[in-house]
Amino acid sequence: MSKNLTTRAEDYSKWYNELVVRADLAENSGVRGCMVIKPYGYAIWEKMQAELDRMFKETGHSNAYFPLFVPKSMFEAEEKNAEGFAKECAIVTHYRLKNDPDKPGKLMVDPNAKLEEELIVRPTSEAIIWSTYKGWIQSYRDLPLLINQWANVVRWEMRTRLFLRTAEFLWQEGHTAHATRKEAIEESEKMMNVYADFAQNFMAIPVIKGLKTETERFAGAEETYCIEALMQDGKALQAGTSHFLGQNFAKAFDVKFANAEGKQEHVWGTSWGVSTRLMGALVMTHSDDNGLVLPPNLAPIQVVIVPIFKTDEEFEKISALANDLISQFKKLNISVKFDNRTTQKPGFKFAEWELKGVPVRIAIGPKDLENETFEIARRDTLTKEVKPKEGIVKYISDLLAQIQSDLFSKALQYRDTHITEVSDFEEFKKVLENKGGFISAHWDGTPETEEKIKELTKATIRCIALNRKEEIGNCMFTGKQSVGRVLFAKAY
Amino acid sequence: MSKNLTTRAEDYSKWYNELVVRADLAENSGVRGCMVIKPYGYAIWEKMQAELDRMFKETGHSNAYFPLFVPKSMFEAEEKNAEGFAKECAIVTHYRLKNDPDKPGKLMVDPNAKLEEELIVRPTSEAIIWSTYKGWIQSYRDLPLLINQWANVVRWEMRTRLFLRTAEFLWQEGHTAHATRKEAIEESEKMMNVYADFAQNFMAIPVIKGLKTETERFAGAEETYCIEALMQDGKALQAGTSHFLGQNFAKAFDVKFANAEGKQEHVWGTSWGVSTRLMGALVMTHSDDNGLVLPPNLAPIQVVIVPIFKTDEEFEKISALANDLISQFKKLNISVKFDNRTTQKPGFKFAEWELKGVPVRIAIGPKDLENETFEIARRDTLTKEVKPKEGIVKYISDLLAQIQSDLFSKALQYRDTHITEVSDFEEFKKVLENKGGFISAHWDGTPETEEKIKELTKATIRCIALNRKEEIGNCMFTGKQSVGRVLFAKAY
Repeated sequence: MSKNLTTRAEDYSKWYNELVVRADLAENSGVRGCMVIKPYGYAIWEKMQAELDRMFKETGHSNAYFPLFVPKSMFEAEEKNAEGFAKECAIVTHYRLKNDPDKPGKLMVDPNAKLEEELIVRPTSEAIIWSTYKGWIQSYRDLPLLINQWANVVRWEMRTRLFLRTAEFLWQEGHTAHATRKEAIEESEKMMNVYADFAQNFMAIPVIKGLKTETERFAGAEETYCIEALMQDGKALQAGTSHFLGQNFAKAFDVKFANAEGKQEHVWGTSWGVSTRLMGALVMTHSDDNGLVLPPNLAPIQVVIVPIFKTDEEFEKISALANDLISQFKKLNISVKFDNRTTQKPGFKFAEWELKGVPVRIAIGPKDLENETFEIARRDTLTKEVKPKEGIVKYISDLLAQIQSDLFSKALQYRDTHITEVSDFEEFKKVLENKGGFISAHWDGTPETEEKIKELTKATIRCIALNRKEEIGNCMFTGKQSVGRVLFAKAY
Repeated sequence: MSKNLTTRAEDYSKWYNELVVRADLAENSGVRGCMVIKPYGYAIWEKMQAELDRMFKETGHSNAYFPLFVPKSMFEAEEKNAEGFAKECAIVTHYRLKNDPDKPGKLMVDPNAKLEEELIVRPTSEAIIWSTYKGWIQSYRDLPLLINQWANVVRWEMRTRLFLRTAEFLWQEGHTAHATRKEAIEESEKMMNVYADFAQNFMAIPVIKGLKTETERFAGAEETYCIEALMQDGKALQAGTSHFLGQNFAKAFDVKFANAEGKQEHVWGTSWGVSTRLMGALVMTHSDDNGLVLPPNLAPIQVVIVPIFKTDEEFEKISALANDLISQFKKLNISVKFDNRTTQKPGFKFAEWELKGVPVRIAIGPKDLENETFEIARRDTLTKEVKPKEGIVKYISDLLAQIQSDLFSKALQYRDTHITEVSDFEEFKKVLENKGGFISAHWDGTPETEEKIKELTKATIRCIALNRKEEIGNCMFTGKQSVGRVLFAKAY
């Protein structure tokens, strides 16, 4: 903990990059655009996975696994989807290396081992999965088919940032097939709601549920539902998407079913995903200039106990107290770490666990031994208080719930005070420049206007909120009629 | 369940291929050599993962994630390892597709998007991980470093079989770094023991712990520990390996640490892995001509309840009983499925769950309603008995434990009666041909003899058992001196 973090006020982007590395979440690897997710970061991702996986299973989904590679001809089948991803695909062309005759000890691609058909490293799996579904679906009895996959995907991004935009990332992708349009739309909406619940209850991130405009829609979807979050710097972050695919992939891969009357129909589809990008959202929603702030529901370590002692005798007494606490916390499924390292001083430990965002710290020193007390520190508010030993476990358990709820409230308040209604483009630019956040404005509904606004301001339409009020108005840019406000923002 | 499986006696290999597909474990995909792991198969893999992950964490390991791609220059750094995998690598050479000017609607690899340096799709991750460890390890205080990764890897196998040998497979790979040779060897042995415990206690597969010969050793390791299992057809299957890497990767990637005296030393390493190959071992150890037989500890569904009824009233009464059972089973963490489909008859359901290897079936019919009984069927023995309702949950719970233990005993008995000691090569060939299994024989210790025996018989040295008795003898092939018997077998 030798050097302070860059502050958010100084340089938000630098603060983020430093924090992700110094809190041991992730780092850049020796492979362009690819990250290493470090154990502490991965432990948070595992907690996210566990909760999401539980929610998917509770809503009737099963996990499966499909190939990493997609043959080019299969990839091409759904044209819009192929076009949408073609420019950022990693492509396998050969299957063997050989010794380089010119460079002893070095290898070269064996030109005799060229694949007949190139393989695309999956940027998303609709193509390979729908080509498989063709074999799985014959009758309405086979529907709905509710599958999820946890996997790595690759999109050859040119400008990458840890978690937010990496060439390889981890995600889950749900792919479902249904007998009717209505059912598929319901599924898309259901999974958007699952994502929103997860974001709010576990990540403590308030999100706006909405629809993407045509421009921002997933390539190959008829409709894209999304949840949009707001970061502390006033930029938006798309935290999850759920697509209603219509019959596009069913038609591209000829997936039909016999309905109850025996008539052949094309299947209706959805797909939905969230990724390690959520890690970036988590960091940028709650953390501060001292480091990470983790919501208790996702913190790998919820409570850290730091002993303060001079003598071996003190250390032994504190250890006995700590071990007693640990066994009580374990019964309540509260994860606790006793930092009994003798190589580091308490001040160093305080700073380290602060940097790593552990929600609650318990310090136990000689005074506490005497008075039967503990010093309790909250990471989110940086406040400390001395509490009696009696009833401490219940107190901490309640405190964790309180912190979880306070983090959400704080983020919600920030978000709600950063949705600004504007009526003309000058005001729009001013708010975007000075305040940031979501800007609620009328738009004429055309991709052309959307594109021009983006060119001029870098702001995009984040979503058409599902709960927007009915309000006829005039497009802030063209003055043409608008059927309702949409939410603009600069975005990650 | 329209058609019976090929029997094992008819064609073991065909039986296996059919069973894996028909029991909904996996199927071949549209991508050469790559499989789709279907939901039922994946559910078994998830149970394996959960247990292994728990065991890894209990032994102090943390999960992390490293890139899918390895730049060629990094891949080359440890020469033996690179050479060992060079001939089966998928290689990414380009990062973009473009529209094919000659074929409207089709895409082609964009020749302008050639990577400066080719990327190898990881066949194993020592190279990328040790290149990362260089940044993580400075001092003895950073050691041991105990990391595991759950990931997909690719080895371009020419002849593939579902689970046993696929171009892409799922696995975990542990990679640890230590301050001393002794500690690293202890880690390799510890993880071999973890694998053996898992195989025996969860998969109900007896395994022999041993060392690989130089020929069969992992490319880049100083010593490879393994667990070897025996399939029902008398062929061996390597179920897991744990490698002592010496300082090979530390030297290749210049990973040094300052010891307690401040002197720089190279780090000692291990790596260890098990893969979806274990699914193949599970199938081939226990299953029979009627389908899968799953050990209760890994069965996604441990108990299936099938109602037998004519009237709605009967169905309602049976459902009430079933739901009561379900809630009692849930309290004991016994996973149960009530197959209340009205589209299928009981006979169809019996055959389906038999094919899928559900350990215990409870049938409830009108007679049972009258007599307050259930019909209980064991999948492993195919026996049935009628049991009183009173005490049934405890009975089933005990029965599951009994089945788990019986499966292991049966497999152990088969294995133990299929280790044959031979003293000359004629006998060796005869046993190999007629009986199969492990053949315990003296060997002169040279790779040349090992190679000749393999050429002549296809049998390889599976391992030098750790618990082999001390016995000087003469090589069955060359007559030269041998310091102990080794285990030969034909292998998957």
